[in-house]
Amino acid sequence: MPQATLEQLRLDPNHPIGVSLHTHGVKYTQMSDGTVHSNSFVPPGGSRTYIWYAQPRNTNTGAQGTAGYWWYHDHVVGGPHGTPGIRSGLFGGLVVRRQGDPRPDRTYVLAFGDRQTINLRRSSEADTCDEQNPVPGPTCVVAKLGEKVEFLVIGIGDDMHTFHVHGHSWADTRTGVIEGTGALANSIPIIDNKTVGPGDTFGARVIAGESVGPGHWMLHCHMQFHSDLGMSTTFHVLDENGAMTAHAGHAPANPVQAAPAGGGQDAPAHGNHG
Amino acid sequence: MPQATLEQLRLDPNHPIGVSLHTHGVKYTQMSDGTVHSNSFVPPGGSRTYIWYAQPRNTNTGAQGTAGYWWYHDHVVGGPHGTPGIRSGLFGGLVVRRQGDPRPDRTYVLAFGDRQTINLRRSSEADTCDEQNPVPGPTCVVAKLGEKVEFLVIGIGDDMHTFHVHGHSWADTRTGVIEGTGALANSIPIIDNKTVGPGDTFGARVIAGESVGPGHWMLHCHMQFHSDLGMSTTFHVLDENGAMTAHAGHAPANPVQAAPAGGGQDAPAHGNHG
Amino acid sequence: MPQATLEQLRLDPNHPIGVSLHTHGVKYTQMSDGTVHSNSFVPPGGSRTYIWYAQPRNTNTGAQGTAGYWWYHDHVVGGPHGTPGIRSGLFGGLVVRRQGDPRPDRTYVLAFGDRQTINLRRSSEADTCDEQNPVPGPTCVVAKLGEKVEFLVIGIGDDMHTFHVHGHSWADTRTGVIEGTGALANSIPIIDNKTVGPGDTFGARVIAGESVGPGHWMLHCHMQFHSDLGMSTTFHVLDENGAMTAHAGHAPANPVQAAPAGGGQDAPAHGNHG
Repeated sequence: MPQATLEQLRLDPNHPIGVSLHTHGVKYTQMSDGTVHSNSFVPPGGSRTYIWYAQPRNTNTGAQGTAGYWWYHDHVVGGPHGTPGIRSGLFGGLVVRRQGDPRPDRTYVLAFGDRQTINLRRSSEADTCDEQNPVPGPTCVVAKLGEKVEFLVIGIGDDMHTFHVHGHSWADTRTGVIEGTGALANSIPIIDNKTVGPGDTFGARVIAGESVGPGHWMLHCHMQFHSDLGMSTTFHVLDENGAMTAHAGHAPANPVQAAPAGGGQDAPAHGNHG
Repeated sequence: MPQATLEQLRLDPNHPIGVSLHTHGVKYTQMSDGTVHSNSFVPPGGSRTYIWYAQPRNTNTGAQGTAGYWWYHDHVVGGPHGTPGIRSGLFGGLVVRRQGDPRPDRTYVLAFGDRQTINLRRSSEADTCDEQNPVPGPTCVVAKLGEKVEFLVIGIGDDMHTFHVHGHSWADTRTGVIEGTGALANSIPIIDNKTVGPGDTFGARVIAGESVGPGHWMLHCHMQFHSDLGMSTTFHVLDENGAMTAHAGHAPANPVQAAPAGGGQDAPAHGNHG
Repeated sequence: MPQATLEQLRLDPNHPIGVSLHTHGVKYTQMSDGTVHSNSFVPPGGSRTYIWYAQPRNTNTGAQGTAGYWWYHDHVVGGPHGTPGIRSGLFGGLVVRRQGDPRPDRTYVLAFGDRQTINLRRSSEADTCDEQNPVPGPTCVVAKLGEKVEFLVIGIGDDMHTFHVHGHSWADTRTGVIEGTGALANSIPIIDNKTVGPGDTFGARVIAGESVGPGHWMLHCHMQFHSDLGMSTTFHVLDENGAMTAHAGHAPANPVQAAPAGGGQDAPAHGNHG
């Protein structure tokens, strides 16, 4: 956060100077709520231990348990809802699993936020993968063909967004996959685009490149003016050898007007479909 | 609605003067639609009986039945969609249960609307609980530890919102709870934040203070600028004796900068977790 | 798209001139992605075959299959997200069914978009049904009493919307109906209003006039300023003989102030409910 803003905060007689940790989904007492009114924040120079409890679902008591895709964030910087704190990056993702839940090979936390940002960055800054040596991270979403990838999608800030990824879809369930069979399993929606409002979180599970192959798959907000302004990154799916495929460039400096390879004909991936 | 607006309506040759009742979810004929074009509104000085039918789900005919969390509202005041009527408060919540549905101890209707309002009020006006003698109502959301509380959340007006409550979560189902077991029951999301657009309704079921204890739990829109502008109230969970716990104040006039109780250490609620 | 805009595109050195086909939900390789960076668009004067694969769900591999309510659209006209292309109408709906899925009698594709439009039109242009001879189409939503009608709802453009239809509701599942019985089938929400963000798609299944009879049922965005500005059409349910019932007019030129038929009393449709 800019120093100027911090200075302003220090002069505000109506708001405490401090920082806090407020979490979604898991359990805690008021002393770990991370809010102003509960006096559970950290003053300058202080320290504080926040205690969170994970709990199983209990069908006797009706307790829902704490498994889910959650996030945690500051709740006091700059105001009683921590808005400037969140905007400055004081947040993170939290996954709580049930026993037996499917384990992913990779997890990416993707915060969709204000000013058309994914993980607080937009346009070329949202995708900084080195194509020769991609290092997975908040601005480098990469997996090898066939890996199980979990996206924890978080909405932050003021705006609505929709999360969309090319070539991949997931089940709209707690875990992003369907377990079980029969008529009801059959009724669960499979989606590739989902509305995410501020504070919303969900888990989208995909198998990298499943039925579509390796490549550079766009991952973006589908609000057109958001994606046009740079709210877009790439899900890079490497081939079975871990190599990145050739790429015409996400934002080509020169127009690409040549006829597509194959004389305008797509080469079918599976002979018996051609 | 201000008298001036009513006067303007009386001078509008293109719109009827009257009021109506339009409902969601339950069944009715065109004569009870409450719309201008079906001539099913109430002119000044008139009266009208609206008839709604509740019906069970019928697996033979495919009729879905009418159980759900719904709302009703005016559809003619100020225009063919009743926008000024709704804005003036001409709406309410409607719960239709199936036989065997879990019964709550308390039900609160919470309309998330324009100008950052919950039940048409914001900031301190959204929470008018008398801490010595809290009387449950649209601006006093209160329950005793362990009570089953049902929130009927309604989106009204022009804006998108997200409904969030601290310390509590619910199942994203028709009733807000999970009935049944097995892999599919296991796949139902547990959430504590949900997008609600205008006209959307859902039921969120929680057990007051379950695993978190009594206290003053914030209940707010998680769009940061909405909550910052006062779209926030409190879910007051009383202790087992019905007493309200001490409270540092929702919007403290003086900064709270003292070190938290416990020397910066949270006192764990359950010894075997500490 | 206006010619002027096309001319501007031709002068833009940073963007290819062409058009593409990008689809949601079904499978394709990068060569059929329809994007700039994958060089899978169609230059002026060229042609291209896009190949899409439908696949069943595979519980062994975890592949989710491709059944669902999807859409396809241009992804290159005017920019790397095809925003002007979509705005110009370069999109459509796509339904992929599983074996055994319930078949509708009629399917309507309804795109909720910017400038308060349904299928790119608003106000009286959104409903052009000839009441004497209604011809089903994008601006004439009509069915006979008892027909199974499927709405494929698509969000396009920049704005959030909510889809609402009077008198009818559906199950919030993959197919819009519930198959199966028991506690979990019982937990599926029945809704009549649903948030749809850009890129979102879902299928809403209703039985025309079920429990409510024939008539002119409003179908509109429930964001009040959207519906007030004309984001509203009509679901015309004909009687069992295929005749359209009398109608007071969607936007009456003259105020309708006469007392409703029946002396302000609704005539109950079913004697044993009156």
